[in-house]
Formats: sequence, structure tokens, C-alpha cells
Amino acid sequence: MPLRPHRPLPLATPAGIEVLTRILTQGPIPRVEIARRTGLSQAAVTKAVAPLIETGFVTDAPADGDGQLGIGRPVSPLTVVPSSVSVIGVKVTPTSLIGVTTDFTAGILNVRHDDLESTDPAAVIERLADHVKALITTLKSGTAVAGPLIGIGIAISGDVDAANGVVRDSPLMGWRGVPVAELLGKRIRVPIVVSNDVRALTVAEHWFGAGVNADSFAVVTIGSGIGCGLYINGEVVSGAYGVSGELGHLPLAPGDLVCTCGRRGCVETVASSDAILTRTREKTGRTDLDLAGAIELAHEGNQQAREAFDRAGEVIGAALAAMVNLVGPELVMIAGEGVAEYDLYEERLRRTFAEHAFGAAGDCRLTLRSHTFDDWARGAAATVIRSYVRGEPPLQR
Amino acid sequence: MPLRPHRPLPLATPAGIEVLTRILTQGPIPRVEIARRTGLSQAAVTKAVAPLIETGFVTDAPADGDGQLGIGRPVSPLTVVPSSVSVIGVKVTPTSLIGVTTDFTAGILNVRHDDLESTDPAAVIERLADHVKALITTLKSGTAVAGPLIGIGIAISGDVDAANGVVRDSPLMGWRGVPVAELLGKRIRVPIVVSNDVRALTVAEHWFGAGVNADSFAVVTIGSGIGCGLYINGEVVSGAYGVSGELGHLPLAPGDLVCTCGRRGCVETVASSDAILTRTREKTGRTDLDLAGAIELAHEGNQQAREAFDRAGEVIGAALAAMVNLVGPELVMIAGEGVAEYDLYEERLRRTFAEHAFGAAGDCRLTLRSHTFDDWARGAAATVIRSYVRGEPPLQR
Repeated sequence: MPLRPHRPLPLATPAGIEVLTRILTQGPIPRVEIARRTGLSQAAVTKAVAPLIETGFVTDAPADGDGQLGIGRPVSPLTVVPSSVSVIGVKVTPTSLIGVTTDFTAGILNVRHDDLESTDPAAVIERLADHVKALITTLKSGTAVAGPLIGIGIAISGDVDAANGVVRDSPLMGWRGVPVAELLGKRIRVPIVVSNDVRALTVAEHWFGAGVNADSFAVVTIGSGIGCGLYINGEVVSGAYGVSGELGHLPLAPGDLVCTCGRRGCVETVASSDAILTRTREKTGRTDLDLAGAIELAHEGNQQAREAFDRAGEVIGAALAAMVNLVGPELVMIAGEGVAEYDLYEERLRRTFAEHAFGAAGDCRLTLRSHTFDDWARGAAATVIRSYVRGEPPLQR
Repeated sequence: MPLRPHRPLPLATPAGIEVLTRILTQGPIPRVEIARRTGLSQAAVTKAVAPLIETGFVTDAPADGDGQLGIGRPVSPLTVVPSSVSVIGVKVTPTSLIGVTTDFTAGILNVRHDDLESTDPAAVIERLADHVKALITTLKSGTAVAGPLIGIGIAISGDVDAANGVVRDSPLMGWRGVPVAELLGKRIRVPIVVSNDVRALTVAEHWFGAGVNADSFAVVTIGSGIGCGLYINGEVVSGAYGVSGELGHLPLAPGDLVCTCGRRGCVETVASSDAILTRTREKTGRTDLDLAGAIELAHEGNQQAREAFDRAGEVIGAALAAMVNLVGPELVMIAGEGVAEYDLYEERLRRTFAEHAFGAAGDCRLTLRSHTFDDWARGAAATVIRSYVRGEPPLQR
């Protein structure tokens, strides 16, 4: 079935955007509750909702089987219509593209993984365009009617200028100044949103995940890179110059090693999975080890391998303490592929965190979140949904 | 002249609070401009402003000499009436109380300094009560009519539970769990707001200072303590558990020294003025030196004294880099009494900052702000004004 044609959201005012955001992230929600939470009058809420219902983005009809008998009308909380739009999100890693199609609530419809043979920007953009086109074909050929495609989100590690869709500096990809939105936009005529990957994951946690009810939270990712997304004072922290949450590049490690970013003393020089592997190889003399092998050795109790994870846990714990001492989040979610081996980091991480967390800042809950790569791609889709709801100008020409 | 009796602000809705905040911080400002910046309708702005004008908190009358001749009514931007309320703010240090009385715009009316002989909590509270009563007398006896006193702000270094008015942990004062609002409230029946001192200064910079037009900024204080106030995403960062901005307690220094907070590796173990003095005494063998003497030695080019400031500058530079890498502020104001000797920190501070700031995060402007102790007391007054405008429940019984 074809994609339905695209329609803009009928949102003329900040109040309308606020109302739709509440329905999207906190729905089903009654009008009176939106009024209470936003401070808007009930009349203003009703006025903002009416065109959204009329155009099919929002509904107050009872779901099947939810019809109520009794006196008067049933209470009809508002929900968005998931199928009213479609979204594509792609996480770009040095070795693969992981893409998803989602509905308006970031619910995943389809998943696609493609390998990358090279991190050369031109080659990646070509593969990315093919990848996205294949996802669009999936949307068109689905059994259910897919809503109009509102945009493509690209999530990528590093310093990303989201306003211009440019990857300024991604040590992991080896990219500097790659205008992803421009290059991809020449091949695919759909609005494009390019984001730092951890920040995209944070948007997804805030709008559709464990962060929906938290006043502030941090998503800390451990694994090949150490990253951090922050949600503070009602918004994901983006940084005035596009950089924030660079937990992996706090100068908390000894200065003897040079980071992939070129600086000395970065957390990642000790705590990234590459750093752990390198250290384990050096100390055991087993240059043939891969990461899985290093993890296995540590689990077997090999002291050299354990020590490499201990060092990583210590530096990550110090970085977490630095972060909570500065911004004091309610909740810290530890995520990233390293979570699978969290038992190897945990003891030193918690001890060092407790040693350096200042006063009540240490009261924040530390929880684990096992995100799959699909969740990261969903984060990219969430950035598109946010941009669409807010009426931000698309990055496509 | 007596203080006029207290009246609550006629603000029933979030929109009303938003409108008054704009007038207070950005006035003189026309109604149409408030509507544009807030997204409210002009009718909503006019509706919110009417009771504020009627009760004398806001005016749209042209200032003296501003009357315009010509066709139609003159444009009448809105301003608050400064004399419509009075405020008291007090900064508490281990050796003195610095208090100010201000008007509604945090404009200082009077200043009072009292020495403290002891940091014993009971003794300080007694002195504080006398200090505040003296300031109230000043308000009553002023030549101009003072507006009703809306509250007393107390600013103090350390981990402060502002919601309950309790100083949880102030290493500088040697206080733990001191219920300042409750103890002072028994002596003076006026609403009391207790805040971390750096956060209070940040509120003042945001509402009435250099931060009014910045989307995000940090105030970093150097001197006897190293502190940091953050303004991000439209609000001063307070921390979910009341702790934030503890730049002096990031674990960035070698672990050989124990901090006043009891932890190892804190920035303050190297960078506080006490740490600099101790280091200079140790290295020069001149145990008689005081801070002024150490500063003089360094200015004379004494290598040991210079090295103590160099180490401090390095650690502060690393802490600044950690902070901008995490939150990416537009502007960093360096303040605190150490600013008077900034030349002694500057070279190493800037070099270390540049070495560790990640990508575009390093683009933030570093500026110096020479706050007096009176400015800190004014910060305490600003917290009262903010609390009053927002209709937060007073901490007085």
C-alpha cells in the first residue's frame, strides 16, 4: 500500500505544541489533566485539540472494547493515532547501519541491518541512501496502511551540529565536517534530522521511555565510547555550541595515553572497550585477544583482565560522580553495549562513585538499561518526531 | 516611615507568573513583545497585566519626562514599580554577615556588615536575627517609602536543602543539618528562603545580571571555595536532591590531600585559596605567610608561590573543561574573590581548559565578573524575589 501524502500538523501556537507533546508522551490523558499539568485553561486545551482530532493525529474515541455503559458520556482520554505518521531512524556505527521504521509513538514497525565495508563518508552516505530507500519500500509494502513519512533521523557518535545536519567531529567514525543532511538530502527528498547518538537515545527516553516521569535524568553509555545524555529543566541538554554530555572526554584519567580525540587524560583512554582490550593484551601478552576473549578471561578470574575492567570501572565511577556533582540528576540510567558485562565494572564503579559523589547528589538512583541497537535507531526516530511536533524547519533542500 | 503591609501578588495562573517574570527581568517591555516572546495571545497578556497594574506592582505610565506628544497614545512599555516591595538578602560567611535591603528589581537600598566571632550555629543564628532586625529598622526609617517586606534570603556555602531551609552540609561553616529557616523563623516572622550562595548569585545573574540574555551560562567562583552555578534550559539547575554545581568537589586533583569535605582528589584540595596558601607555606618554608603575603610573593615572581597558583589554575582549567564538556554553556563568568588575582591563575587555567575542552564546547566565552560581597547578598535577595513571583510557599511558621 502506498504511503499517504504528508500533511503538516495543525499547530499554530506554543500552547498547541505543549498540548500535543503531553498527549504523545503522557497519553492516554484527559483534557482536564492536560489543563492541570500545563496551567492552560480547559478552553485553551479544547481549542488546541480540536484541529488535531479533525485531521486525524489525535483521537478521543474509546478504543475497541473500551466503550462504557452508564450515565452520561464515557470519559474519553486523548491519545495520538499511531498510524497517522511514519518515521525512519538510523543509527550509524563504523561497521553497520541499523534502521527502523516507527509510528507516531516511536513504536517500531520494521528493522533493517546493513553492514558497512568502509567508514569513508562518501561510501557511507551511498549505503545510507540505499538503506533508507529500502526502509521506505518496506513502509510502502506493509500490510497495514503506513502514515505519511515525516522524516529521517540519523544518529551518530561525536560532535554533531544538529542545526545544520553536520557531523563536525566523530573520532569513532573518523569524520570531520561531514554535511550528512546535505549529502543525504540530495538523494532522498524527506526532512532529515542529524543528532549525536546518545542525545537521540535521551530524547527517546524522555518522550517514550523510562524518563517520562523523571524531573531530570542522565543516560550514561558505556562500551566502545563513553557518552552521556542529560535531561534537565524540562529539556534535553544540547549545549550552546552543540556539544554536551561528553562524559568520555572528561580529563579524569592519567595523562599517559592519547585518546581517539587527540587529547590526553580522557575517560575513554582507560574506560572504552578498546582501552580495556588494549590493556588486557598488554598485561597478559596475548595480542590475539579480541574483546569477547578479554571479557571471558575476566569472567574466568584472570587478574590482568579483571584489573583492566577495574580501572575502567574506577574512572567511569569518578566520571559519574563528577556529572552528578555538577547537575544532580534524579536518575542515572547506565546503558550501552558494555552493560552486558556490567558485573565486571560494577564493584569499582560503585565504590569510586560513592567516594566522590558530594552529599545528597549521591542519592540519585543508578539503574541499568539494556538498549539494543534497534533502540538507538528508535532514538533517531524520536528526534524526528520531536522536530515535527515542534514545527522546526526541516534540514532538506 | 513604616513599612507598608504585605500583599500577595495577584497571580492566579502560570501565564501570569510568566508575564510578570518578563516584565521584571526584561522590562521596560511592551505588551506585544511579551506576547511574542511567551507565545501567549495579546489578550492573555493584557488580562494578566491588568490586576498587576491595579495593585501597583506594575506600571505602564510613562516615566517622568517621558510623556510624548503626537498622534494617538504614547507607546507605554511595562515596568515593575521598584518600591512596591522590599527584600532583605544576607550572605553568611565564617567571619561575617553581609546584608542588603533591595527593591523589587534587586536594586540595593542599604548595606550592613557585621563580624562573626564564632561559626557555632546557635551563635550565628542569634547574630543573624539581630542583623536582619537592624536591616528591617533601616527599611522603616528610610527617607523614602519602603514597600512591604516580602522575605529574607539567606545565602550560604555548601549543600543546602532549599525546600526545607536546612543547611545539610557546609564544610566552610563546619555545619551539618542546621535548620536555618526554622531557627531564624522563630525570631523573625517573615518568609525565609535559604540557598546555596553560588546558586543565589546565579539567580541574580539570570534575573537581573549578565545572564538575562544568555540561553545558558555558568557562574564559576574561585577563592576560598570553588563553586559553580548553572543556568540551562530556562532555569537555574538546582539538582534533584538539592546538590548541583559542586565544581570544587570534582575528583580532578591528585588523591594525596583530604578536602575540607572529607573526600580525596577534590579540586579544592589544590585550588582553594587555603590550599594555595598551604602549598606556598610548605614550599617556601615561610609558615608565617597569610594569603595576601602569598599573593604578593607570587606577584614578585617567587617560583614556589607561582607554582602554587599554577597548580590551582591547572585544576580549575580542567574543571571548567569538564563542566563545558558536560553541559556546553554559552557563557562562563568567572567570579569570586580569587578574581582579584586572576592574572596569577590565568595562563595555566586557559591552557588546561583549551587542552581538555571537547570540540565546539571550547567556543564558550570566558569572562570575568568582579562581584563584591554585597552582590552575593543581593543574590540572596533575588532568590526571595523569584520565590515571591512564583508564589512558592514560604518557609516560615
